Amino acid sequence: MEDNLSTFFSYVNDNNQYLINTLREAVAIPSVSADITKRSEVFRMADWVKDRFIKLGADVKLVDPGTQELQGQTVQLPPVVLSRYGNDSNKKNILIYCHYDVQPALLSDGWETDPFDLVENEDGRLVGRGASDDKGHVVGWLLTLEAFIKHGIDLPVNLIFCFEGMEESGSVGLEKVVAAEANGWLKGMDYTIISDSSWANATNPSIEFGLRGMNYFSINVKGPKADLHSGGFGGMVQEPMVVVTKLLADLVGIDGKINIPGIYDQVMELTEEEEKTYHGLSLTKESLLNFLKGDYLMDKDIVQLLMQKGRYPSLSVHGIEGAFYDPGAKTVIPASVKGKFSIRTVPNMKPETVKKITIDHIQKEFAKLNSRCRLEVQELNNGMWWYAPPNLPINVAAAKAMKRVYGTEPEYVRGGGSVPITIVFQEQLKTDILLLPMGTREDRAHSTNEKLDKYNFINGIKNYFAFLYEISIF
Amino acid sequence: MEDNLSTFFSYVNDNNQYLINTLREAVAIPSVSADITKRSEVFRMADWVKDRFIKLGADVKLVDPGTQELQGQTVQLPPVVLSRYGNDSNKKNILIYCHYDVQPALLSDGWETDPFDLVENEDGRLVGRGASDDKGHVVGWLLTLEAFIKHGIDLPVNLIFCFEGMEESGSVGLEKVVAAEANGWLKGMDYTIISDSSWANATNPSIEFGLRGMNYFSINVKGPKADLHSGGFGGMVQEPMVVVTKLLADLVGIDGKINIPGIYDQVMELTEEEEKTYHGLSLTKESLLNFLKGDYLMDKDIVQLLMQKGRYPSLSVHGIEGAFYDPGAKTVIPASVKGKFSIRTVPNMKPETVKKITIDHIQKEFAKLNSRCRLEVQELNNGMWWYAPPNLPINVAAAKAMKRVYGTEPEYVRGGGSVPITIVFQEQLKTDILLLPMGTREDRAHSTNEKLDKYNFINGIKNYFAFLYEISIF
Repeated sequence: MEDNLSTFFSYVNDNNQYLINTLREAVAIPSVSADITKRSEVFRMADWVKDRFIKLGADVKLVDPGTQELQGQTVQLPPVVLSRYGNDSNKKNILIYCHYDVQPALLSDGWETDPFDLVENEDGRLVGRGASDDKGHVVGWLLTLEAFIKHGIDLPVNLIFCFEGMEESGSVGLEKVVAAEANGWLKGMDYTIISDSSWANATNPSIEFGLRGMNYFSINVKGPKADLHSGGFGGMVQEPMVVVTKLLADLVGIDGKINIPGIYDQVMELTEEEEKTYHGLSLTKESLLNFLKGDYLMDKDIVQLLMQKGRYPSLSVHGIEGAFYDPGAKTVIPASVKGKFSIRTVPNMKPETVKKITIDHIQKEFAKLNSRCRLEVQELNNGMWWYAPPNLPINVAAAKAMKRVYGTEPEYVRGGGSVPITIVFQEQLKTDILLLPMGTREDRAHSTNEKLDKYNFINGIKNYFAFLYEISIF
Repeated sequence: MEDNLSTFFSYVNDNNQYLINTLREAVAIPSVSADITKRSEVFRMADWVKDRFIKLGADVKLVDPGTQELQGQTVQLPPVVLSRYGNDSNKKNILIYCHYDVQPALLSDGWETDPFDLVENEDGRLVGRGASDDKGHVVGWLLTLEAFIKHGIDLPVNLIFCFEGMEESGSVGLEKVVAAEANGWLKGMDYTIISDSSWANATNPSIEFGLRGMNYFSINVKGPKADLHSGGFGGMVQEPMVVVTKLLADLVGIDGKINIPGIYDQVMELTEEEEKTYHGLSLTKESLLNFLKGDYLMDKDIVQLLMQKGRYPSLSVHGIEGAFYDPGAKTVIPASVKGKFSIRTVPNMKPETVKKITIDHIQKEFAKLNSRCRLEVQELNNGMWWYAPPNLPINVAAAKAMKRVYGTEPEYVRGGGSVPITIVFQEQLKTDILLLPMGTREDRAHSTNEKLDKYNFINGIKNYFAFLYEISIF
């Protein structure tokens, strides 16, 4: 193991330019899944991935997830590329998830260089669309497998790949494919690696051991059949906006405390072990204040703040549909409005319980108002939280690999957001899951001038090698 | 007087087609003041009016109000057409206000016929843009003056006209012109007639003896420098939307009661005489329910409803700028939002007092919230209410005229909306003011298929004659 890692690390160090050039090849294919005019490029990218796997001698299967409606047309979904290298029943089966599609990017959006021509800057930035999200990962894994084969070194695990082409457009079709292959190509997986994330800060490797779920609601309040003029009707009619602002205002305190009875009942108790993980993290209150350009934080203590974001539920009010929203003054009484809010959920809150107690609460509060408007509380969507305790083998193995490569222990963090694909794999394959990061949160994923630092690309590949060995011996 | 009226009424009865054809001529000029491509048509309409006055031997002066910025260009404002017929110091000086511009109208908006080609329907509707608002009035007054001259009958009053071409676009420039002419062409007016309104219902003539004013506010709540993702920041930052919904929710009850201390202190006391005017009006609760398509009314009693609309202040919440407003779900924490609401004001509320107590109240409530967001309460605009007691000579004269023409007493109503030009004339000329209606509230002014009933056009002209005699002998 040590010898092999030494060989690989030297190879990676000596072949930076080759690795970067391969990434450049991948970035050059504008595989934008959201743009109907680029759909053929997404398919071209799938072929590029498939051809690489075939050249390496891996088994490959392209699964067609069917069609979708896009910009008024029915179009074919890009394939989920499944691949397997190694079938040794004495080795662990490691599933690697990446996506080969990217967010849209136009020079006119404010890119300093052609977004689909990877530029290596003197400061070490590799700038191009998808460099960090997620082609660095896609290419990293292909190059990792290639290195094993080039050096004639036996893999310590069986590698199974699942690369999709629709992640930036809601992973349409993925769940169906994973479910269908759960007893096929994806049968018997020991671990699932989601290779589509970044360090939680710019300077330290990190392991996310949790993500929040979400229930998204719409409070629909209906009144008169059409908008009214406040001159002609103000004072005569009950106004849906008055009802909806009262209902929204009642949901959460200024301090972030949610007023829905029972909402905190299912929250996992804080253990001393978990509490420790929030101390000494590199994310400081100062960096947050600098980012926000002012002190709009809930609490003064960074530990409390991180827990409020990562391990406790939160409620955000997003806006109102159907009301006046333009600049200036308009004397309208909106006839029908929808107040939008969502609750980020954490272990062990059940989505169906959250839905029930939230709708019940709002209906009760509405009844107290004695309004003649009509109420409907709708759940627009919900997604499950995800949690993987720091002491899971998969997390410990990743931490050991990171220590080897970066010379430092990773930080353990719980993310506040949601990664729906994580839940897809959790529910379909029932394996432990690792979110294995490559770049950093400052890579401007989804934005202009997206980059991946050369340091993170090169060391990210070393980390793949190290992780495969560490998990193989666990 | 009786002989003259009899002559005029016969003339009107015998010349329906001529009167309607003249209205058709006026409607055919698409004098849309909001549309830069139609600005020359507004000028053409001013010339059409001017030429008519000149042909009748009236003095005419076109006043240039200057320029405006419209759709990115500096354009000339259409003239205010001033005209005078008669200068007898023994007669009263009656000022007539109308506007010769119209709202936009396109066949594609849903018109059944060309909006600028007046169509006379079998059911008695004269359909065309501006028929009711306000070319029926413009043409009606020109035809009234013409009839005096045709019949060689001396006018019982001196008539002064002020016809503007920007009413549908905020009356830009009018106030300046009226102020400048207050000691010129508009000096010594005894009464001002705003000839730009409709009956308060479809079946009965009415006299509006009051209008509400308005103070329009924006509650600006600022937080972080940019919108945030609720996954990454929900629970960590204080949300401006939470603050603004709490502040808006607190302003008014479901029952319409305004929670701003002192807001009712200046409301004029209800006299027995005024209370009577709200009884027995033709507007019924049933017609309101039918219009609203459901019972969203504040109170069960039509008298209370009419008073809440006409003689008491009301507060409407219009919407929120800066928040999410599209259909669907977006997980944004808006960084900076503006909650819009307005208060309709009534005698004897002072706009500056309303402004002060409202801003004070919101600032106090905000202080209680203990939020770290920043608050600014802005008054976007305000306008004064208007009130003219039913027993004013000008109202009594109008009622007598209506009784003659329509065979019934008019209903006295207080309007809930605002007519800013009324306040312009009140403040600049200090005369009593009459809103003299021609069409009905069902004429679809500003909407598709605007119409003026032939009945209302023909009798509206008779009513002009009758009113001039009635006010002359008062």
